[in-house]
Parts: sequence; structure tokens; C-alpha cells
Amino acid sequence: MAEEQDPEIEKEPAERTTQPDRDEDEFLPRRELLDQIDEAIEAEDGAALNALLEPMHAADIADIIERLHGAERRAFLQLYSGEIDGEILSEIDEAIRDEVVEMLPREVLAEAVREMDSDDVVDLLEDLDEPEREEILAALDDSDRAAVQQSLAYPEYSAGRLMQSEVVTAPEHWTVGESIDFLRAEDWLPEQFYHIILIDPRWHPVGYVTLGRLLASRREVALRDLVEDSFRTISAYAEEGDVAYAFNQYHLISAPVVDADDRLVGVITIDDAMSVLDEEHEEDILRLAGVGEDSAITDTVVETLRQRLPWLMVNLITAIVASLVIAIFEGTIQKVVALAVLMPIVASMGGNAGTQTLTVAVRALATKSLTGSNVWRVVRREAIVGVLNGLAFALVMGVVAWVWFDGVSLAAVIGIAMIVNLAIAALAGILIPLALEKAGADPALASGTFVTTVTDVVGFFAFLGLASAVLL
Amino acid sequence: MAEEQDPEIEKEPAERTTQPDRDEDEFLPRRELLDQIDEAIEAEDGAALNALLEPMHAADIADIIERLHGAERRAFLQLYSGEIDGEILSEIDEAIRDEVVEMLPREVLAEAVREMDSDDVVDLLEDLDEPEREEILAALDDSDRAAVQQSLAYPEYSAGRLMQSEVVTAPEHWTVGESIDFLRAEDWLPEQFYHIILIDPRWHPVGYVTLGRLLASRREVALRDLVEDSFRTISAYAEEGDVAYAFNQYHLISAPVVDADDRLVGVITIDDAMSVLDEEHEEDILRLAGVGEDSAITDTVVETLRQRLPWLMVNLITAIVASLVIAIFEGTIQKVVALAVLMPIVASMGGNAGTQTLTVAVRALATKSLTGSNVWRVVRREAIVGVLNGLAFALVMGVVAWVWFDGVSLAAVIGIAMIVNLAIAALAGILIPLALEKAGADPALASGTFVTTVTDVVGFFAFLGLASAVLL
Repeated sequence: MAEEQDPEIEKEPAERTTQPDRDEDEFLPRRELLDQIDEAIEAEDGAALNALLEPMHAADIADIIERLHGAERRAFLQLYSGEIDGEILSEIDEAIRDEVVEMLPREVLAEAVREMDSDDVVDLLEDLDEPEREEILAALDDSDRAAVQQSLAYPEYSAGRLMQSEVVTAPEHWTVGESIDFLRAEDWLPEQFYHIILIDPRWHPVGYVTLGRLLASRREVALRDLVEDSFRTISAYAEEGDVAYAFNQYHLISAPVVDADDRLVGVITIDDAMSVLDEEHEEDILRLAGVGEDSAITDTVVETLRQRLPWLMVNLITAIVASLVIAIFEGTIQKVVALAVLMPIVASMGGNAGTQTLTVAVRALATKSLTGSNVWRVVRREAIVGVLNGLAFALVMGVVAWVWFDGVSLAAVIGIAMIVNLAIAALAGILIPLALEKAGADPALASGTFVTTVTDVVGFFAFLGLASAVLL
Repeated sequence: MAEEQDPEIEKEPAERTTQPDRDEDEFLPRRELLDQIDEAIEAEDGAALNALLEPMHAADIADIIERLHGAERRAFLQLYSGEIDGEILSEIDEAIRDEVVEMLPREVLAEAVREMDSDDVVDLLEDLDEPEREEILAALDDSDRAAVQQSLAYPEYSAGRLMQSEVVTAPEHWTVGESIDFLRAEDWLPEQFYHIILIDPRWHPVGYVTLGRLLASRREVALRDLVEDSFRTISAYAEEGDVAYAFNQYHLISAPVVDADDRLVGVITIDDAMSVLDEEHEEDILRLAGVGEDSAITDTVVETLRQRLPWLMVNLITAIVASLVIAIFEGTIQKVVALAVLMPIVASMGGNAGTQTLTVAVRALATKSLTGSNVWRVVRREAIVGVLNGLAFALVMGVVAWVWFDGVSLAAVIGIAMIVNLAIAALAGILIPLALEKAGADPALASGTFVTTVTDVVGFFAFLGLASAVLL
């Protein structure tokens, strides 16, 4: 039902949106609230803490726990551990879940995992050590334990790990009335479900009916007549990134997961697919920047160093390689010191152009829009763009160098070096991630380092080499 | 219902997952199919084309249209335009939607938009020129047109633009039975809906009931007794990025949207929130790489140049600024040419370390995990990490320089320059995005250029300046 348009509305948005103010963010807990929580922790006032957290969403409580450090976090857990339930536990970041689990009283932990859906228990167990795993499995009742163990038998990052085994099914020959009666009689149903999955006698899913259509149909209608076109099953072995892609591409809300024999083993819902999409993006962006994929803003100094030092070390090695190229031309530089002034420009432009191409290529691979069917077209386009970029900046830098150092040959040298380096940058930017993908590696990982190594080496070599030949 | 665990399962995943093969990707149309489609287009065989596309999902057909270029795309549209419906139209990327809309026969276009949910019509209209807008609005029936115009009255990228006005509501005093009877009697319901929103007489949403709970409850139960804890409304003026955050954070499936007077004006569903999350990530990653945010792998050469040249131009200017710093020390370089060899290493390490910090900071701002309450802690951590990184690489590079050029003073100079530059890199990496955010700009935009400018200038200045003082 649509409301009439209110003419007053049009004025307000401008005011509200041109003055964004983080402190007023409606989706964040208010600052004073966070201060009060800090005070309660400091005063070791468990009652006050409970009262403050009581109205909060589990996800926000988990965020608060993540943001605390060291002694503060331990103090918080000491005060609050009795209240931590399955919902909060499944929202807590993997990086600190260990610590939280260890601090929980055993009966609180057992109660928490019993509340959780099987996919959340699987997610929790993946990161824990063997003794804690066993303890949690022991706390589950038999059918839940079997479901969790079944999930854990699938590979990491597969649909099998992501699915929950709690599914709502109906035999394919049922009517609307029969299913409603069945649902009303069930004393247990999943927290969230959006479809009833129709199965044949061999437990193969054959279609699904949305709850909306079920509700809107008369009791005598056959479920078979209500199934959705969008029905598709997901293999339990599919990679979770592909699952997220499918949800986003086909606007799925939930999808049945099947084993190697096409039998129904679980269901994946869109909220889990959305989390995966979010994580995959995060990984891509962190990897492209040469930061360990587990980096978080709440890391300690030591954790941060562990995520960053290795990549800086790799960068140092590639920088030294580039310097070795410069060292070849020491003599030339001594004679024409302007080369030392200009050479970082050639390298920098190559590095930037290569990173541009690389990023677009990595994203296109992740979103499946760069595939076998268009790869050569894209490579050709990048090569053309590289040459055209090169021509444009050859012109600009040629003029700059000419004016600055009053040398036509120097201008020509930097111009040609620019064309060579930007063309190579474009090719490296597209071919390196393609090669990594072909080799089964993540194209985002280390691509950046490879690409800038190529552009530094080619840039210095082309510029200084040409200069040696032309200027001396 | 959980199946028994099948011991055979464990072997298969290893085989399947260690040999990823893009051509077998179960979520992509098969390569032969794409080849057949190309052939049908070339042969101008409309019937064959229709037959090939008939079983395909609208989103995949849209992808095929996006991947075609120039004359091919026109040929495709000529053959297929009669079949393009609302679903395909709403899946087509904004960048080429214009072109498709222009080629559609007017009655096909009118029919397509009449099928679309109001949010998809809004999304379509946003990118079109005035005459086409008017034409499409005219094709809608009165109540749909009013709904679309209401949405368009909200600011771009707001929840009001994202919502669909098709909502399913019930008065707060209804029972399960009354709502089921109402739904069965309605001759029109949204394609997808997951909740019934309870409203008071003044049209304020007061809670919602999931369809699952509705179905599982007896007819006489009051809706009021079934409402979900997770209920929260979204202001029509909220930014779409914040909406996506809220869906991901709170595992929302759909959320009612309210106007400034808290009256219900529409509903946002998770699939739209997921698309927004995807787009926001994409923008961040492209902006961090200095590529225009509309970059796509299907762009033409000209479009690609338009996305990339401006950023390369900005980079050129900053590279020239860095070169000006080097030029100050020309005399020093001429005397100690080793400086020219080593100086790119200092700059490169600074650039990389700064980019690491920057990326983590930009992501933390986007996910609301870097806020007023922890900003100083994070800045302090980054500063400490910067100094420690600096000490580590001062040691490594000191040794390298000492061995390479046999000079203790040179080793000391590069060591100190490394510490200074990595510390400044860390501060620039965190403070620049914070400042941009504070100023109301997107922290991802141009941050990278600012940070590398700082690290280049500081790196060259510290290294060459120290060298001039110590070595000469």
C-alpha cells in the first residue's frame, strides 16, 4: 500500500544528509552508553553492566567485547560471562572467540551452544582446539552433534560448512493445508526459514514454495503448483565465495544444499551468504594492500606487526631488486644527475597504472565478469589503454622535462620510457592476476607486489638504459 | 532434519576442491552455450537465440548483454528486444541501461516497467534522461506512479530510494487467522515478502511477525504475541551504506522504512541491501586503487581512459612534487651516487607501510569499527607499529647498505630515514582517512595519493637531507 506523497518531505533530506555526523549515527550505540559501560567495567559493577547491555543487540555486545583490550576484556568477561548466550557467541569475531570460550563457565558454554543453529556451532568449532571441540560436541544432543559432524566432514570454506542442517521439508505431493497443519504441529522450527522445500521419497529436493505463496493460497492447493522458478540447489562442495556470488546474482533468499548424490543435507540462508560476501571483499581489499587478511582494527601491536611485517619484507626485497637495476647505471646518473630526479616519476606512474588495471581485473575475477569468453578482449583493451596512457603522459612529461632541464634528448628519453612502462604496466596488471587464478591461487594475493616489481624494474631499466644510449 | 553422516563423502571434496576449473564453474553459463549465442547473433537467428536464452535466469541474460560490445550488442537487442522484461531490465548494469532502454520497442518497455517492483523502477529512472523518465512514468498506473515519485523525492543513495513501497501490513490487533484470510483474499501481493508489519491506526509500524511464525501458529493467536525482538525501523533518509551495514550487523531480512513522522512508507529487503553492500565494497576497492568508481571490465577503451587518466594525472603531479625534493639534493647525489640507488627503497617502504595502515583504516571506517570511542587507541597503536616497523627495517637496510656500499655513515643515514618515514607513513595512513571522514568526504577517495605523496616527500627529504648533513 502506498502513501500519498508528502510535500514537506523534500526539504528535510538536504539538511540531514549534508551534515553527516558520526556521533549521531542511528546504527551505532551512543557514545555515552559506551562510556557508561566502561565505567561499569572499571567499577566492577556487574549489575550496572547487565542493565546497560540488556536492551542491546547481540551483535553490538559482541562488538563491544571485540573493542576491549587485554585486562579490560578479561574484567568484562569476568563480570558478564554468565550472560553470554549462543547469539552473542556466534557474533564474536573468530580472532578473539578462543579467549572468550576459555573464560566462559562450562555450563554457560554448554547452554549457549545448545541454542545455536548448526551452522553457527560449526563456525565456532572450526577455530577451537581439540579438547574444547570435544567438550562442545559433548554438550550437544545426539541429532545436533550428528548434524555438526556431518558439516565438519565437508571441506573448509565449502557450502557444507556454511549450511545449517535444520531444514523444513514437505513431501512433493502435499497440499497447502497439509503443510500448514504439519507446521502447527511441529514443536520445533528453525529461527528463520523462508521456503518449504519439496522432496521426493529419495530425499532429493525437487522445488520450493515461499511462505508468502503458501499463506496466500487456499488449503486444497497442491504445493507442486506453487513452486518457484528461481529454485536451484547448491552442492555441499561448492566454495563459499561461489555460493555468495549465486545468492547475489540470482537474488536467492535461501537455497537447499545437496550432497554428491543430490540428496538434501541442509539449507543456506541469505544472511550467511551476505556475511561471506562481506568477508571475501574484505580479504580482497586487504590482500591487495599487502596486509594479512586477518587484520582488524582491534588487533594489538604484536598482532598488527605479525600481519604487516612479512609483506613489508617482500616489498623490501623487490625494492632492492629495483635498486640493483639503478646500480647498473650509476655511471650514467653521475654524469646526468637529472636522471636521478626524474626516474621515480617513471616508476611511480607505472606502479599506479599497473595497480589500476590489477584492481579492476581482481574485482572482475571475483565477480565472475572476467571469464574465458572475454579474456582476450579485455587483455587487448588493457594493452591499448596502456599505450594510450603512455602516449598521453609521454607528451606531458616530455614537456615538463624539456622545460625543467632544457634538454630535448632527455625529454624524448622520458617520453619513450613512459610509453614502454605504462604499456608493460597494463599487461602486468591483467596477466599476473590471470596467471595466479589459472594456477589456483587467489589473484588478489601478492599480485600488487609482482606488478610493482615489474613496473619498477621496467621503468628504471627503460629510462636509465635509454638515457645511457642516447645522452652519453 | 539431519541426515546420517556418509563416510564416503570425505574423500571427494579433496579432489574437487584442489582442481578448481573455471570452465566447470557451476554458477556460470557453460562456454558452449555462450558460443552458440554468439553464433545465433551473427546469423541473426532470432528463434535460435530465444530458444537458447529461454531457460536462462534474467541475471545471466543481463550479463550476456553487458559483455557484448558495440555492433554485437545492437544486433542482439534488435533480435531479442521483444523478450526483454522487467526482470532482465532491472538486472542490467546502469552503465548500459540507457542504450538498452532506447532500443526497446515502446510497448515492450511499458510492459516491462509495469511488472517491476517500485524500487526497481526508481533505480531505472535515476539514470535516464527527462523525456524517457516521463515516458516510463506515464506507462505506470496511478498508484505505482505515486509510489515511484514518492521514492524519487528522497535523496539519492537514501533508504527512501532503495525501498519498495509494496508492503504487507496488518492492524496491530489482528489474529493469525484474520491475517491468513486477508492474504488469501488479496489478489495482489509482492513477489517476495518475509514479514507482516503491524501498524497502529496512524500508520506507525509497531512490530513484525515472520511468515514462519505466522504459519506455525494457531488461527486464534494474536499477532501481537508473535512479534520479533529484532524489529527495527529504518529512516527513509538513512544512507544506503548504513542500511546495508544494519542488515549485515543485525541479520535483518527485511526492515520497514519510515518517513520523518515515523509513518511506514516502504520496506527494504535483504537482497537489495546485499547489492548495496557489494557496490560499496566495489567503490572502496576501486577508489583505493585510484580508479573511477564506475569502472567495469566491459568498459570500452574510451570509457576506461576516462576512468583512469584523471587519477594518473593526479599521481603525476604528486610524483613531480617528490622529484622537486630530490632536485634540492642534486649536488649531494652527484657526489654520492649510491644515494640515487638507495633512495627509491626508502620511498617504496614508506608507501607500502602507509597503504597498509590506510587500507585497514578505510575498512574499519566503512564497517563502523573505527569510531570516536577507539580512535586514539588506534592512532597510538599505528604510531607504535610504525616506529617498530621502522626499527626492524632500519636494521635490515642498514646492514644491506653497509655490505653493499661499505659505508657505516650511509648505513646509519638510511636506517634513520627508514624509521622516520615508516613512522610518518603510519600516521599519514590513519590520520588522512580520518580527516577526510571528518570533512564529510569518502575516506577511500584520494587517500592513497595523499599518503604516498607524504611518504615520498618525507622519505626523499629525510634520506637525502640526512645524507647531505652527514656524508658531505
